[in-house]
Amino acid sequence: MLTFDPLPSVMTLEELQTPSLILSIDKFDRNVEQMRSALSRHSVQFRPHLKTAKSVDLAMRLFKGTSMPVTVSTLKEAEVFADAGLRDIFYGVGVAPSKLPRVIKLLDRGVDIAVLIDSIEQAEAVTAYSREQGKPIPTFLEVDCGDHRSGILPTNQQLLTQIAKKVSEGAELRGVATHCGRSYWAGSLTAIQQLAITERDAALQVAKLLRGAGHAVPVVSVGSTPTALHAKDLSGVTEVRAGVFMFFDMVQVGAESCSVDDIALSILATVIGKNSATGHYIIDAGWMAVSRDRGTASQNIDQKYGLVCDVNGRPFKDLLVLDANQEHGIVGLREGSMEDEPELAIGSKIRILPNHACAAAAQHDCYHVVTGNATSIDAVWPRFSGW
Amino acid sequence: MLTFDPLPSVMTLEELQTPSLILSIDKFDRNVEQMRSALSRHSVQFRPHLKTAKSVDLAMRLFKGTSMPVTVSTLKEAEVFADAGLRDIFYGVGVAPSKLPRVIKLLDRGVDIAVLIDSIEQAEAVTAYSREQGKPIPTFLEVDCGDHRSGILPTNQQLLTQIAKKVSEGAELRGVATHCGRSYWAGSLTAIQQLAITERDAALQVAKLLRGAGHAVPVVSVGSTPTALHAKDLSGVTEVRAGVFMFFDMVQVGAESCSVDDIALSILATVIGKNSATGHYIIDAGWMAVSRDRGTASQNIDQKYGLVCDVNGRPFKDLLVLDANQEHGIVGLREGSMEDEPELAIGSKIRILPNHACAAAAQHDCYHVVTGNATSIDAVWPRFSGW
Repeated sequence: MLTFDPLPSVMTLEELQTPSLILSIDKFDRNVEQMRSALSRHSVQFRPHLKTAKSVDLAMRLFKGTSMPVTVSTLKEAEVFADAGLRDIFYGVGVAPSKLPRVIKLLDRGVDIAVLIDSIEQAEAVTAYSREQGKPIPTFLEVDCGDHRSGILPTNQQLLTQIAKKVSEGAELRGVATHCGRSYWAGSLTAIQQLAITERDAALQVAKLLRGAGHAVPVVSVGSTPTALHAKDLSGVTEVRAGVFMFFDMVQVGAESCSVDDIALSILATVIGKNSATGHYIIDAGWMAVSRDRGTASQNIDQKYGLVCDVNGRPFKDLLVLDANQEHGIVGLREGSMEDEPELAIGSKIRILPNHACAAAAQHDCYHVVTGNATSIDAVWPRFSGW
Repeated sequence: MLTFDPLPSVMTLEELQTPSLILSIDKFDRNVEQMRSALSRHSVQFRPHLKTAKSVDLAMRLFKGTSMPVTVSTLKEAEVFADAGLRDIFYGVGVAPSKLPRVIKLLDRGVDIAVLIDSIEQAEAVTAYSREQGKPIPTFLEVDCGDHRSGILPTNQQLLTQIAKKVSEGAELRGVATHCGRSYWAGSLTAIQQLAITERDAALQVAKLLRGAGHAVPVVSVGSTPTALHAKDLSGVTEVRAGVFMFFDMVQVGAESCSVDDIALSILATVIGKNSATGHYIIDAGWMAVSRDRGTASQNIDQKYGLVCDVNGRPFKDLLVLDANQEHGIVGLREGSMEDEPELAIGSKIRILPNHACAAAAQHDCYHVVTGNATSIDAVWPRFSGW
């Protein structure tokens, strides 16, 4: 595992070396509370996805010190959060047979970790390894609710029942799970609400099928940030997963999941030049700091490499990171903007609200925690990476 | 600094947990030799850029144990390579005034580190800080050779001479530097050769101007992988920089800098499913493993998220990572391909040749070194990240 070496202890964003990752903790808390409030309307368990955070400190903040069920995207996340005391973990990416020994090791430590499968080959591997180890691995069947990424379509009844049967021969059929990732690009609240129904119904249809075949299917798990926030009726669903809601980002603004003011994550950068041929500013945050993610390019409003704010986190209207090289960002007004470009002195600091929080955060090894519009640094929290 | 915890010692790629970064060391050596040979036709100093490698082991391999001049993109790189014994470092991104104390600290350690500037404000900062510290900071003027990213156009003679004058009042005017990044998208060998002339002439024009104004301008520094490999005449240039040539990638294939067989870097992944609705394979390498870089999207042939090879590194014709989520990759044939899709069993391993070596490597904390088509792992070399 990567270990963390504390940064030189500077007290404010003005003193901090750039580029650096900034977390507005009041916004994080507000976003978490909003999701809890949205889900409290339904009889569901909340199982937040920690793939965006990848931080033990943030997990503790999210749970206010208690232990709660979580979702992870890698076994590395499962192992780190297990070390931190979490005991109920859903590994939400189809499991490779060669990773099962790490799953058993976690089960042996008393961690209730469940895996996800969508093929007979995985079912055979999970069942055979469960038998060999004398420990039934909790297993979810992945349902394709129309994204056509992974999972099995509810209409593929024969395969679904075959897999369920195979799992129950040695592993533990814990439930069914689906994720409507296309809700990020739904375009409207009405479309998100419709997708929340699609997501729910796909999972319920498979749960009903498998129950009809004699399986208990105790858990019906769904979720994405937009559908979790806006679902009107989750009858039959037992748990909801969501991750990016903690931070939000410009893609979620485009998806109408949040407003710009809700974004808790930003990248601090320094103005290092102004090109006289283009009039654009140059900053010391390129794609190494904000990531190559251009999720908003396929939404109605393209935010290029992110929206620029002042050091206090207040957005400049229409000022974007127009382009990015490895360590250079190019800052200028959105095409067609009628705004006056703000005057930014060389050496001055700005903050960038990224396209995609998961991708931008992954480029950094720690969070610098601030509150409100203050620039004083309350804490430095390590992040981990790897698999 | 991040410290490295050795991986569980597995001996072959078949046993290695995925996703993981693989380096074909014979290809690396061959690529380095090709660049040395190309540059030996000119009377220039070679100053390789280490931003792609970010590895002390690779720097040592590149230099065969001797110390040589290098280029870096961050002060973190400068500091790590200085710790490893390198003593001649060019920091090739415009310097923020707040970073000058770290530059002085390196100079104080006996490292000859030079910075890059393109504004009167930076010149004032560099000169004032040099005087304050009693140590003239070696400084390059950045020339805009037409990329219009950073740098000053050669025609902007007044600003260029003003900055040079200001630098020489307290710092050390080491030379002029330019980089023709658009050579990656030149589209043909002839176009690259023309850009090599443009790059050279822009730097020479400014060197001549400043020499006419009484400055020595000992160093004239140019370079990008395509122009460094294909320049026909570098008369007047004293040093050449290039970085991605060590690894190459699909963007460089598109730029005609190399062939697919030259690519030394790949990402090992495991097949975790096959979606029956689309027929596409699902692998456990998403953008977290291959990066979000889609550099080939703006070239003649779009390689999506990279070209798929078998575990021995032999490419499957037209098989691409068509799409990527955080930890999912979607693998299928290129649109319009007449090939038969290869049969890939769930659990089998593949390797991906990425769009952009710099971005893909940055997602990993170590290289697994292999030779030729063998799958035995010769060594594990740590990478570092951060600023």
